[in-house]
Amino acid sequence: MATSWVPSVTPTTEFSLANLPFGIITTPSDPSPHAAVAIGASVLDLKVLSSHPAFPALFPPLAAHPDVFAQPTLNAFAALGRPVHRQVRAALRDLLSTDTAHPAVLRDAPAAERDRVLLPQSQVHMHLPMQIGDYTDFYAGYHHAYRVGCLFRGPEAALQPNYTHLPVGYHGRASSVVVSGTGIRRPTGQMLLDGEPTTGPSRRLDFELELGCFVARGNRMGEKVGVEEAEECIFGYVLLNDWSARDVQAWEYVPLGPFCAKNFGTTVGAWVVLADALEGFRTRGVQVEGRGEVQGYLREGREEAVFDVRLEVDLTTPEGDTTTISRTNAKHLLWSFPQMIAHHTLGGCPMRTGDLLGSGTISGPGGPEERGSLLEMTEGGKKEVLLYGMDARKFLKDGDTITLRGWCGQDGARVGFGECRGRIYSA
Amino acid sequence: MATSWVPSVTPTTEFSLANLPFGIITTPSDPSPHAAVAIGASVLDLKVLSSHPAFPALFPPLAAHPDVFAQPTLNAFAALGRPVHRQVRAALRDLLSTDTAHPAVLRDAPAAERDRVLLPQSQVHMHLPMQIGDYTDFYAGYHHAYRVGCLFRGPEAALQPNYTHLPVGYHGRASSVVVSGTGIRRPTGQMLLDGEPTTGPSRRLDFELELGCFVARGNRMGEKVGVEEAEECIFGYVLLNDWSARDVQAWEYVPLGPFCAKNFGTTVGAWVVLADALEGFRTRGVQVEGRGEVQGYLREGREEAVFDVRLEVDLTTPEGDTTTISRTNAKHLLWSFPQMIAHHTLGGCPMRTGDLLGSGTISGPGGPEERGSLLEMTEGGKKEVLLYGMDARKFLKDGDTITLRGWCGQDGARVGFGECRGRIYSA
Ligand SMILES: [Ca+2]
Ligand SMILES: [Ca+2]
Ligand SMILES: [Mg+2]
Ligand SMILES: [Mg+2]
Ligand code: NI
Repeated sequence: MATSWVPSVTPTTEFSLANLPFGIITTPSDPSPHAAVAIGASVLDLKVLSSHPAFPALFPPLAAHPDVFAQPTLNAFAALGRPVHRQVRAALRDLLSTDTAHPAVLRDAPAAERDRVLLPQSQVHMHLPMQIGDYTDFYAGYHHAYRVGCLFRGPEAALQPNYTHLPVGYHGRASSVVVSGTGIRRPTGQMLLDGEPTTGPSRRLDFELELGCFVARGNRMGEKVGVEEAEECIFGYVLLNDWSARDVQAWEYVPLGPFCAKNFGTTVGAWVVLADALEGFRTRGVQVEGRGEVQGYLREGREEAVFDVRLEVDLTTPEGDTTTISRTNAKHLLWSFPQMIAHHTLGGCPMRTGDLLGSGTISGPGGPEERGSLLEMTEGGKKEVLLYGMDARKFLKDGDTITLRGWCGQDGARVGFGECRGRIYSA
Repeated sequence: MATSWVPSVTPTTEFSLANLPFGIITTPSDPSPHAAVAIGASVLDLKVLSSHPAFPALFPPLAAHPDVFAQPTLNAFAALGRPVHRQVRAALRDLLSTDTAHPAVLRDAPAAERDRVLLPQSQVHMHLPMQIGDYTDFYAGYHHAYRVGCLFRGPEAALQPNYTHLPVGYHGRASSVVVSGTGIRRPTGQMLLDGEPTTGPSRRLDFELELGCFVARGNRMGEKVGVEEAEECIFGYVLLNDWSARDVQAWEYVPLGPFCAKNFGTTVGAWVVLADALEGFRTRGVQVEGRGEVQGYLREGREEAVFDVRLEVDLTTPEGDTTTISRTNAKHLLWSFPQMIAHHTLGGCPMRTGDLLGSGTISGPGGPEERGSLLEMTEGGKKEVLLYGMDARKFLKDGDTITLRGWCGQDGARVGFGECRGRIYSA
């Protein structure tokens, strides 16, 4: 396994050479948002690197796109397609490897020059990585859908008849997707209280642990993307927190689905893990006993269609005490992203570069400690989640911070997503 | 009432001096999309007008924005806000009036010069007028919601308990909003057939007659727009056809709402009627007996919160025969656009310039001939809509064209929306 000469690359870093996630930064010397990759506790400034005389030769597919890393989002890069992403990752991996074939560019460059390209993560500011045209949230977390269905409709009607036949989803709100670290205001909303409609700050504010997927290249209106081609449409993945106001949702959601309960904010991680970085971590999704074959347009050639990503949720109280309240895995999905894309485009709906798809809340099959939302952990607010120091929650308090984390792989080659974090401030 | 010197302005034109709707055109001499207003059977090319030496003096609020009409969408102009739109409309109305204070600019300009600015509508090509960040479809057509509720859930549960308390809506798909005249491919989708899931072209393809509203200026995330301020957020209105695949919708819509049944295409008119042009046509919306007061954030100071716009739907068969299948009025709404905006932003959801809101399907209280969808006209496909020449429809056939029309006002001062038209081509 390749090692890196970058001093901040430790054996346990989730930003190993095997990862190289892309993000959008501003730096002390450049206030225009532009592209970077994370490596160890550092970032490689791709805009600065683009100005190196060797850049066109090292990155042949970018020779015709010299400004692609100077853009304020990753959209232009994503639109170049997966074969280009693959070549660019390989070239970056070489430059950052101990045995790089081009030591003069970075490894053996004068320290002053290297320090312009390689900055401590603590010195950069992260921005929303993509310009998101449309955001769609699916509901592919099987154990979540079942458990929430029980709460809203009872175990008999928990999963609707369509659930195992198509990837259920709804259109979300693109304008309120924000990058990790952005504060989330507790939403005011309309809800039922003692059977009467009333308006006020949500009393049942929750998070949802999800995996997000960004589109690299889409399809033209009227055309569909086959499930076997869909993989080529994917740019990469982020952690996603679909903040949810459960009291607002319960009152508004019939018959047209969630609206104000969701559109006040969705947080995504700052680092996009490219699709190729997850290829080595494929596994099988949820298997449902007695489930017949799915419709032809949803049938995938491979069984290992989801990813074995370990996920954790931390709750930090206003006092600053942190408890890991959930540990689960991104494999607990009934539908893969290629299936979601095939279904989304079946009728000709166009996907565009930068579109965001959410997996739906990811929960394990077991107890509260492996569930992806407080709604499930507390069984609809009936039980409490215990926190450090005898504190407890049913739903989120003002000043609480939720931090999602996710990673796969072994020490020395870990692939992680960085934090997806948001703090609640008062209505 | 002011008259126009423009020869193509007839007494019955819906593009009278009282209207002056904005759109995006390309012309024989300029293939870059740019702004225009419609007047009679002509268009005034605003990009060409912007280059007139008198432009900065005639349009003082645009002096600092000399390129605002050279943009490929109206977003930059919309973002300047309603006071600017008002001044610009007034200045345009003057230039186009018989008794203009500035005859040299257009009226008495040399014919060759005038012909560069004033073109026949037949010579220009229309484009999507706005860049749409997010599209939300509401459900404020009371008679539609009631009638469809009866079909899906029976008369007892036709209107959900929340319906009269909040403007029910869902997030739609922005990427598939297209301008009038764009072909719409019949969607393939998953549906139940004889109780079994199956995949194929929709057999129950329908239209929905709606009014669309474009946002001029929005709000910051975490802030809300009060119902009394919301009027200032509105740029203007278009007709909107929310194409709907009823068989797909019936199978997919629980529990998260419509998705593939809607996201294959939404057609909007090419001409945006600015909010000020409709001010004179205010009227009261639907009054529901025994309805209590709405929540405070939805309470409007004025009763006349919707618009008295006559609406018509034409169905043209593949053979070219046209039947007007519906005549109704935009006043049949339970909720106004300011109420929709106040509700949408109550929890802090940010609206952005160019965002599109749909009213929901507009139907009258009476018979099939005043309903805004085939679903309602045919009572869920049980009856037929009779067309010219003994033809009939339950749902749309390949090659059918749906044309929506809408106008208000008297001859000489009509304010109309132009056609919102789409033709179905085969799956
Ligand atoms: Ca969700
Ligand atoms: Ca609709
Ligand atoms: Mg959300
Ligand atoms: Mg639609
Ligand atoms: Ni290229």
